[in-house]
Amino acid sequence: MERPRHQGMAKNTYMRWRLPLVCLLWELAMIVLFGVFVRFSPEADAHWQEEKREMNLTSDIENDFYFRYPSFQDVHVMIFVGFGFLMTFLKRYGFGAVGFNFLLAAFGIQWALLMQGWFHSFKNGKILIGVENLINADFCVGSVCVAFGAIVGKTSPIQLLVMTLFQVTLFAVNEYILLNLLHVKDAGGSMTIHTFGAYFGLAVTRILYRPHLEQSKDKQGSVYHSDLFAMIGTLYLWMYWPSFNSAISDHGDAQHRAAINTYCSLAACVLTTVAFSSMLQKKGKLDMVHIQNATLAGGVAVGTSAEMMLTPYGSLIVGFVCGIVSTVGYVYLTPFLESRLHIQDTCGIHNLHAMPGLIGGIVGAITAAAATEDVYGKEGFIKAFDFTGEYRTRTPSIQGGFQAAGIVVSLLMAFGGGALVGAILKLPVWGDAAAENCFEDDVYWEVPEEEETDVYHMHNPDKPASP
Amino acid sequence: MERPRHQGMAKNTYMRWRLPLVCLLWELAMIVLFGVFVRFSPEADAHWQEEKREMNLTSDIENDFYFRYPSFQDVHVMIFVGFGFLMTFLKRYGFGAVGFNFLLAAFGIQWALLMQGWFHSFKNGKILIGVENLINADFCVGSVCVAFGAIVGKTSPIQLLVMTLFQVTLFAVNEYILLNLLHVKDAGGSMTIHTFGAYFGLAVTRILYRPHLEQSKDKQGSVYHSDLFAMIGTLYLWMYWPSFNSAISDHGDAQHRAAINTYCSLAACVLTTVAFSSMLQKKGKLDMVHIQNATLAGGVAVGTSAEMMLTPYGSLIVGFVCGIVSTVGYVYLTPFLESRLHIQDTCGIHNLHAMPGLIGGIVGAITAAAATEDVYGKEGFIKAFDFTGEYRTRTPSIQGGFQAAGIVVSLLMAFGGGALVGAILKLPVWGDAAAENCFEDDVYWEVPEEEETDVYHMHNPDKPASP
Amino acid sequence: MERPRHQGMAKNTYMRWRLPLVCLLWELAMIVLFGVFVRFSPEADAHWQEEKREMNLTSDIENDFYFRYPSFQDVHVMIFVGFGFLMTFLKRYGFGAVGFNFLLAAFGIQWALLMQGWFHSFKNGKILIGVENLINADFCVGSVCVAFGAIVGKTSPIQLLVMTLFQVTLFAVNEYILLNLLHVKDAGGSMTIHTFGAYFGLAVTRILYRPHLEQSKDKQGSVYHSDLFAMIGTLYLWMYWPSFNSAISDHGDAQHRAAINTYCSLAACVLTTVAFSSMLQKKGKLDMVHIQNATLAGGVAVGTSAEMMLTPYGSLIVGFVCGIVSTVGYVYLTPFLESRLHIQDTCGIHNLHAMPGLIGGIVGAITAAAATEDVYGKEGFIKAFDFTGEYRTRTPSIQGGFQAAGIVVSLLMAFGGGALVGAILKLPVWGDAAAENCFEDDVYWEVPEEEETDVYHMHNPDKPASP
Repeated sequence: MERPRHQGMAKNTYMRWRLPLVCLLWELAMIVLFGVFVRFSPEADAHWQEEKREMNLTSDIENDFYFRYPSFQDVHVMIFVGFGFLMTFLKRYGFGAVGFNFLLAAFGIQWALLMQGWFHSFKNGKILIGVENLINADFCVGSVCVAFGAIVGKTSPIQLLVMTLFQVTLFAVNEYILLNLLHVKDAGGSMTIHTFGAYFGLAVTRILYRPHLEQSKDKQGSVYHSDLFAMIGTLYLWMYWPSFNSAISDHGDAQHRAAINTYCSLAACVLTTVAFSSMLQKKGKLDMVHIQNATLAGGVAVGTSAEMMLTPYGSLIVGFVCGIVSTVGYVYLTPFLESRLHIQDTCGIHNLHAMPGLIGGIVGAITAAAATEDVYGKEGFIKAFDFTGEYRTRTPSIQGGFQAAGIVVSLLMAFGGGALVGAILKLPVWGDAAAENCFEDDVYWEVPEEEETDVYHMHNPDKPASP
Repeated sequence: MERPRHQGMAKNTYMRWRLPLVCLLWELAMIVLFGVFVRFSPEADAHWQEEKREMNLTSDIENDFYFRYPSFQDVHVMIFVGFGFLMTFLKRYGFGAVGFNFLLAAFGIQWALLMQGWFHSFKNGKILIGVENLINADFCVGSVCVAFGAIVGKTSPIQLLVMTLFQVTLFAVNEYILLNLLHVKDAGGSMTIHTFGAYFGLAVTRILYRPHLEQSKDKQGSVYHSDLFAMIGTLYLWMYWPSFNSAISDHGDAQHRAAINTYCSLAACVLTTVAFSSMLQKKGKLDMVHIQNATLAGGVAVGTSAEMMLTPYGSLIVGFVCGIVSTVGYVYLTPFLESRLHIQDTCGIHNLHAMPGLIGGIVGAITAAAATEDVYGKEGFIKAFDFTGEYRTRTPSIQGGFQAAGIVVSLLMAFGGGALVGAILKLPVWGDAAAENCFEDDVYWEVPEEEETDVYHMHNPDKPASP
Repeated sequence: MERPRHQGMAKNTYMRWRLPLVCLLWELAMIVLFGVFVRFSPEADAHWQEEKREMNLTSDIENDFYFRYPSFQDVHVMIFVGFGFLMTFLKRYGFGAVGFNFLLAAFGIQWALLMQGWFHSFKNGKILIGVENLINADFCVGSVCVAFGAIVGKTSPIQLLVMTLFQVTLFAVNEYILLNLLHVKDAGGSMTIHTFGAYFGLAVTRILYRPHLEQSKDKQGSVYHSDLFAMIGTLYLWMYWPSFNSAISDHGDAQHRAAINTYCSLAACVLTTVAFSSMLQKKGKLDMVHIQNATLAGGVAVGTSAEMMLTPYGSLIVGFVCGIVSTVGYVYLTPFLESRLHIQDTCGIHNLHAMPGLIGGIVGAITAAAATEDVYGKEGFIKAFDFTGEYRTRTPSIQGGFQAAGIVVSLLMAFGGGALVGAILKLPVWGDAAAENCFEDDVYWEVPEEEETDVYHMHNPDKPASP
């Protein structure tokens, strides 16, 4: 059978030696680096019995594992099923959406354990890892999944691995600057994950601008069942986001509070998304793109402040606003960014992660600046913002200023890093597809035969699907 | 392209101003009410350090968050993915099933936090919320999802929001009567969630009776892949039901026991469902409708008694019976209810929730009446039924009587409330579709083009799909 | 409508009386046996308050429920959604994959509670069950799900129930020999679950060899969306495997460590799977079969050693190797096994469970033999291998020897049991389908009409799907 859509293929997308080589060499590098550096944290090491005595813990239940493991698993689902299936809305890129997300995340978490480990868990020449490191590694990869959303369908798996390598590295540096140097709070990652990840991805896709992308326009949409697959991703992100924002908060009230705030924000966000999705469409019909994405903006936007005393109604307000901002973004901003600024943003991460991430950073700064001992209690105030040691003299308003600085740093790192990585990915050696073959699994995957027949007919609108 | 199925459309289903208005105004109301009333419970508040000292707790792990959060997340999945996907079996209503369930649940949990808060968590003019409130809000919305099952495909999103508003309100009143006035046990909600929710929904759908619904009969069925999507919903409900029934039980043995009883009941239910599905079909083939629904009846039916000493074999017996009752209901009762009583029950909630819910209430009453100090231990007996304070003189048989009274109250509230709400929903202002457009996403959703082509041909059986 | 593909049907696949009879009788037997034997463990019994005092526990959080319930739920998802959806890759066997897996697992967990209970939780004539028993029952059924993978599409539901009955029985015996007589460690079941389950299934499918299976070859493949359904199964298995391998490990560091090791092994496995999938295909394209299956081999292969001090880099090495072994197996070994040894292995469990299971047993033996007091600490060493009581004089190298013996015993039990059960299943009374009707849901399920039309045309390649 002739496949006319491939006739114009000029680019070399042959992966047979390049992709295996990258995967194998990098994995070997991981093994060597893990061998040299990575060991178990005391709570995961067989010496725990002795450690427990030293720490005066009476029960195994005090092991950090029991505080964080359920949240870890929820976050894990968000990264692999949530992000992976969210992108399966594309009618012919389901394998790439789920499969490449799987690949980049599996590599990314290993490299993140190392990068974040050197910065945060390095003791006597070893990185000591426990469940909190696993969560942080998933978080770090989450920012790569965000960026992937901007370029999904237009990049080769090698490009994605290269981007992951660099982005994880820069993420760790940015995170170190924010958390350690600026002493900023960002437990759910509005700044470190979403703002950084989204603007990084937008910078990359800007550099990789494809002027003839309309050649694959027929494949940029969804079909009925691909939209349902995407809703699996949406719902798992939505449902588990309270775990995401509370996963690495302090034990006790902070985790508890972060989950409640996120739950509230997300609930409000759904209603304003539905409202504006209907309002902005001529016939008043709902658009699956909005329901799949803008409903999640509320989770992004309380990423910094969820563990603070944002309060449930404060969370509702944030969610209310972000559902609107995000939906309006999909309707007006995404076409504008593409036509005027040449930013081709496949999943609309600007609306789901970039703007809500910025809002999240700002809400965090305001919430911190507005903190009082009255609201938090004397002990709670110090504990919530970790105003101890060299930071014991920090006031809430100064903290708010540093929080704001954290946004700026994240933006600069994202733009700079994204531009740099975009330039690297533009090199003609990574095997990306020609414009007319974008959003098409057939380029990198063995695709079952029957379905190709269907697609063939889809692509020939002149021929009716039946007589 | 002509779409003949829309020619007869007479009703105004235009949502553009109505739906946004309802969503925005109601969400604003939520924000105001949350602002006035809702605050964090002591375990989620930044004053927790001081609270902990006062309560003589030595570790953060004693925070209720760690007892209940994993169960909360499982319940959350049941409400949004479980109920949402269970209803995607409809070939052309997947968006509505998942999307409207998402919308009504997101609104419902906010309103439930308020309604249940006023009744149960009101202190010094404020509603103090923690993880248990989130679970209860999800539970309350669960009863709305149940009712949605009866009317899915035949109602506009505004009707669903109106129903949610009223049903959540009545749920909270009914729950207050049962739990506080009658001092009834119902941790998994056989009465408050399933009996109430199902008969409420059945009353609504009776009032909304559509005489010409056979006009959309071709869309009331499933296609191959929509049945697989529905199995996602089924399995998540089935797997997480032990969490549902144990989520708000007392710490310790009660949660543990409720999970085990539910696990056993559900396992037994699968076997009798399969047996009767095959037995009641001429060719002995299994029917996906039964597997998707009747397998869950065992979870519904131990909702009241799971935390009691029902014992594993008692649970097996309950599951055994309910698989049979539910499957037989699908085969014989649903057609009867539709043709004779004019009750059009899209998902067959009468078989999955109403009858098993009643059985669950009765099993609970019997189990309570049969309780002895010998079986529970002296302390366990008092703790299990909370026979303290003004209830310290209650005997098991009296408790059994009150449990039975709880069933009656739930039924009365459901019939009365459902009839009232049905009458409100019958007003011709809510934008529901004409009979021939029921079970069709195209009415309220932007639907991808290609698929409509397929559907077009599906609806013209005269024309073969290929020459 | 004529359905030519059924013309050659000679076998009697009529289930109407046989299947219900088996389901009902067996479930009644379960009820009787549970009634006689099964009671709650002290931690799930209403006497817990007194028990707690006797055990000197200060808080309900010390109840084993809170240590293990989140992991239990993850394992539960793996068994029902993970295994069920993994097998939905078959284009026309999605109902059977998910539905029969549901049926056999629901029966199997009940029978496993009894069989394992008699061996491990029997006290004063009663089996006392708690959350750990539920996990073990799920584990046991996991081995049946593995075996199901070899024969899916070729067997009747009655055959599957018969196999489950026998396999669960033999599993419990094998497990007793390994854990109690040989005092072997195998928390994640490389030997007891995967090696035993896989070789058992391979023996069964060998005995059930179908010489004319190529008659249904067109249905042995996938379609685009069935491959996406299968990825749901893959990802849930992959994400929750850390819970699987840590679910029944000792409280504290052992659970913590098992999760970390598994996380690492699985991450590495993805990269080598991708590498070899691309490398072994002429055009360098990735094969969904490999991504769906071989990425999981790393979880299988650390099943024995994950709770030991395997270390993160050790885990990476195991995952690295297993991704390669498994992918190479799919490309070269599966066709060889089928053509030369007449082993028809539908899902390729030899590559995903058998070989990685063997590797896992060997890695466990080596890791145990290499253990030192230096690495584990004096207390940790004794606790990790339970070198107490009659085993207090065991040395690591002797333990390694016993571990190796465990592999051999598991293999012998699997081959012997599988051959026996295969012979039973070969009896012409169980209602399996003829070769040309394998991999076809229509044999045992009511299948929606429209889709059959599609399938009809799929099977007539002479006729184009459109003019």
